[in-house]
Amino acid sequence: MSDSKDSIPLKTFPIPMSLDDKIQIEDFVSRNSSKKIVVVQGLGFVGAVMSLVCANTRKDEYAVIGVDLAKKESLWKIKSINEGSFPLVAEDPKIELFFQNTIEKGNFYATYDHYAYSFADIIIVDVNLDVKKDLAENFSLSGFSTNLDNFKNAISVIGAYCKEEALILVETTVPPGTCLNVVQPTIQQEFIKRNIAMDSIKIGHSYERVMPGPEYVDSICNYPRVFAGIDEKSEKAVELFLKTIIDTKKCELTCLESTTASEMAKVLENSFRATNIAFAVEWSRFAEEAGVNLYEIVNAIRARKTHANLMFPNIGVGGYCLTKDPLLASWSRKHFFKSKEELAMSVNSVSINDQMPVFAYERLKQVFGSIERMRVSFLGVSYRGDVGDTRFTPVESLVRLVQSDNANVKFHDPYVSYWQELSCRVESDIDEVFYPFPDLVIISTAHSEYKNSEFIDKILAISPSKIFDAVGLFSEEQIKHLRAKHDISVLGRGDIN
Amino acid sequence: MSDSKDSIPLKTFPIPMSLDDKIQIEDFVSRNSSKKIVVVQGLGFVGAVMSLVCANTRKDEYAVIGVDLAKKESLWKIKSINEGSFPLVAEDPKIELFFQNTIEKGNFYATYDHYAYSFADIIIVDVNLDVKKDLAENFSLSGFSTNLDNFKNAISVIGAYCKEEALILVETTVPPGTCLNVVQPTIQQEFIKRNIAMDSIKIGHSYERVMPGPEYVDSICNYPRVFAGIDEKSEKAVELFLKTIIDTKKCELTCLESTTASEMAKVLENSFRATNIAFAVEWSRFAEEAGVNLYEIVNAIRARKTHANLMFPNIGVGGYCLTKDPLLASWSRKHFFKSKEELAMSVNSVSINDQMPVFAYERLKQVFGSIERMRVSFLGVSYRGDVGDTRFTPVESLVRLVQSDNANVKFHDPYVSYWQELSCRVESDIDEVFYPFPDLVIISTAHSEYKNSEFIDKILAISPSKIFDAVGLFSEEQIKHLRAKHDISVLGRGDIN
Repeated sequence: MSDSKDSIPLKTFPIPMSLDDKIQIEDFVSRNSSKKIVVVQGLGFVGAVMSLVCANTRKDEYAVIGVDLAKKESLWKIKSINEGSFPLVAEDPKIELFFQNTIEKGNFYATYDHYAYSFADIIIVDVNLDVKKDLAENFSLSGFSTNLDNFKNAISVIGAYCKEEALILVETTVPPGTCLNVVQPTIQQEFIKRNIAMDSIKIGHSYERVMPGPEYVDSICNYPRVFAGIDEKSEKAVELFLKTIIDTKKCELTCLESTTASEMAKVLENSFRATNIAFAVEWSRFAEEAGVNLYEIVNAIRARKTHANLMFPNIGVGGYCLTKDPLLASWSRKHFFKSKEELAMSVNSVSINDQMPVFAYERLKQVFGSIERMRVSFLGVSYRGDVGDTRFTPVESLVRLVQSDNANVKFHDPYVSYWQELSCRVESDIDEVFYPFPDLVIISTAHSEYKNSEFIDKILAISPSKIFDAVGLFSEEQIKHLRAKHDISVLGRGDIN
Repeated sequence: MSDSKDSIPLKTFPIPMSLDDKIQIEDFVSRNSSKKIVVVQGLGFVGAVMSLVCANTRKDEYAVIGVDLAKKESLWKIKSINEGSFPLVAEDPKIELFFQNTIEKGNFYATYDHYAYSFADIIIVDVNLDVKKDLAENFSLSGFSTNLDNFKNAISVIGAYCKEEALILVETTVPPGTCLNVVQPTIQQEFIKRNIAMDSIKIGHSYERVMPGPEYVDSICNYPRVFAGIDEKSEKAVELFLKTIIDTKKCELTCLESTTASEMAKVLENSFRATNIAFAVEWSRFAEEAGVNLYEIVNAIRARKTHANLMFPNIGVGGYCLTKDPLLASWSRKHFFKSKEELAMSVNSVSINDQMPVFAYERLKQVFGSIERMRVSFLGVSYRGDVGDTRFTPVESLVRLVQSDNANVKFHDPYVSYWQELSCRVESDIDEVFYPFPDLVIISTAHSEYKNSEFIDKILAISPSKIFDAVGLFSEEQIKHLRAKHDISVLGRGDIN
């Protein structure tokens, strides 16, 4: 599940002196006068794709304006969209198809001018809400904070411009209680300044379950959705809107009794997943100590329906959601609902998951000894398989640890060419990381490509090396095959160290 | 999932002066000379039913001797079986049917004489292995210990009597590593005393997933099973045996590479469940604070397959397994595998779950105020719905807390007539706890019976009362119905307090 984030700029653009885009906006609106106007606030991983979805409904009832800030990180996306190039590289062919449709229809425009909100019938909030973590030396969580100021500012801007009867639909993952404690009063403040009443405004919350990858668009349109409104008219307006973008024949639309409930559902479901992963971390280490193969055990247990989501060992958790959503929830419990207690277990899960790369690193050295000055090739930098997304990837922590041992590192990833967070090149040609021969190969992302028999042949062609499979990629058969030549160890498999 | 435990004695018997039962055993064996002899060690919730299963296989190849101790807690079970009355009251009609079959066939006998082991082709170990918990004042876990002495003694007895080529199959939930670290060396010691070699003995581990209730027998015979042996011949012997009692057309039989792996699988799967329950505890409290309905949220999230096992709020966890298995695992990690670390997250889950009755009690008082000297009727004392099993039921803790406020308590349960742990009567007639009118009704076990419309009518017939549904029993409709007359609160539902 993914929130918005800045992709890699394809081009850079000078920040404009004036943010006045009125003429273009008015022109776009008048060309689309038969359509309702949807404004999407935030053109990240969710907002950009959500814009495409809204601009490609069955009844074709919307013209969409994407709004983002005229800053280095986002300006290029606005420009890209208007120049006919979608700012997000994705494996889902529907993305490009949908984008080309909008060009033909002329119903998608992007801007940095807040003036756009004044035309909106529906405003979808897809801005970021980040958490700042304080990590101890062992990567465990010593504290965290979240600052709602940016989020609040984004809402203020909407309140300053929007129509009295607009629908404001928050999709951002927020601390439960945010619609009632932040969004509604912020809009109210702006409306008081504008001397207009709050009677007609509609505010709701609904969360996406976007999964970047080959079914990016379908993970929005054909996936069950939860929503709520701050009152009955808001609830109805959200439902009406969602029914135009979700295929309710294929998936359920669930209305909860309050926006707080909908906000809580989102962070709860991600906290559950983070907790399940943390559980696997703990048992993965135990399995290594006890000399057993945890994959085999997990497979045996998964036969039970009640245990089908038991996780396999892994290098750690990444992405924008599981690494912070439990913290947003805990923040809400203390700050909005004045509890004396944190969501200790959920917060602890984040901490355990953040430490996983450290455990992987320790295991690596336990099995293979010192890696000082070794040539180390990492296969995969993305936070999950078959996706080109390095946000909060656990590979980053592992790389930094390996680098601290003065190892020489190289990276390969079929989906990433430049690693923004580490400011370094990522090879797409595997030979670049296999020649000269590496001393150690670390399988760090479970890309399907690495399981192909041609790929195994490539590994078998290099000189005998140490192989550390930190994601449980290889099959039993493949491990046997590789062991004939290489010295292999798999995370969570104490039986083959 | 349930291990063995003592049921309620139907009759008491004097402890015999002599434990010599040789003649009876020899007679039983000679009457069953065409059959292989299975000896089941421990006649608790698992051992007793496992005995029936072995005595009722498709090919009818086994005669079964159940062995237990000549102590007050178990002697009555031995006598009951031999007198034609099965010592376990269960909702599964197959239990009585299977037992009657054994009487007709004459292939089930029970004894306290260890001499029985000397005839066994297969010995199934179903004895208890308990954990002693140290609880702080708030019921949180301040420490725990487990003592393997009794278990080791039970294995010694087997080693002192068994045939050189017997199969010893451990079904008891044990700390991972027990077969190799305890069972094998203990048998070896006894064999040295007897001056016989270890070459032919077979030792394996396989765990049941018994679920007491209406499908008690099927939860043994038609449920996937995991097993392992300490060597190849043991593994084969276990597989051969399991294939005679499990219907492998209906369910998988998974062989793991070591007994440690099989032992770990059992405690891992129960730890996973305990962790999922602890997760629900944490969010249940948050939901109450935030004034939302967690049931509604959980239902919405369960639409996702990856989240289908998300738990609903509940008064806590009971039974023999989830309350201790994570502790056995953690004990193993430290003692058998010399780790410096506990399985902190899994252990903490046990602690959180043990505290749940305290949270329920606090919530009760938060919503309804003081319960001093109130007449309180508990509906349900069993640890789970539609089952008559009070082992480690969380209701016990809640009752003790309510009693500490000088409330007058009464109990109703359709499946329990006497509450052994509290040494008190449990009513089967609901009128006994509804008249005179109670001040407070606590729904403490989710028995289906309590959801019947006749039952709701009975509650509606009493004078206005406070109702605390601590297990999320009632439907939305029923709550609405009850609220018309009573003051109702549901655990994990902050929206109706």
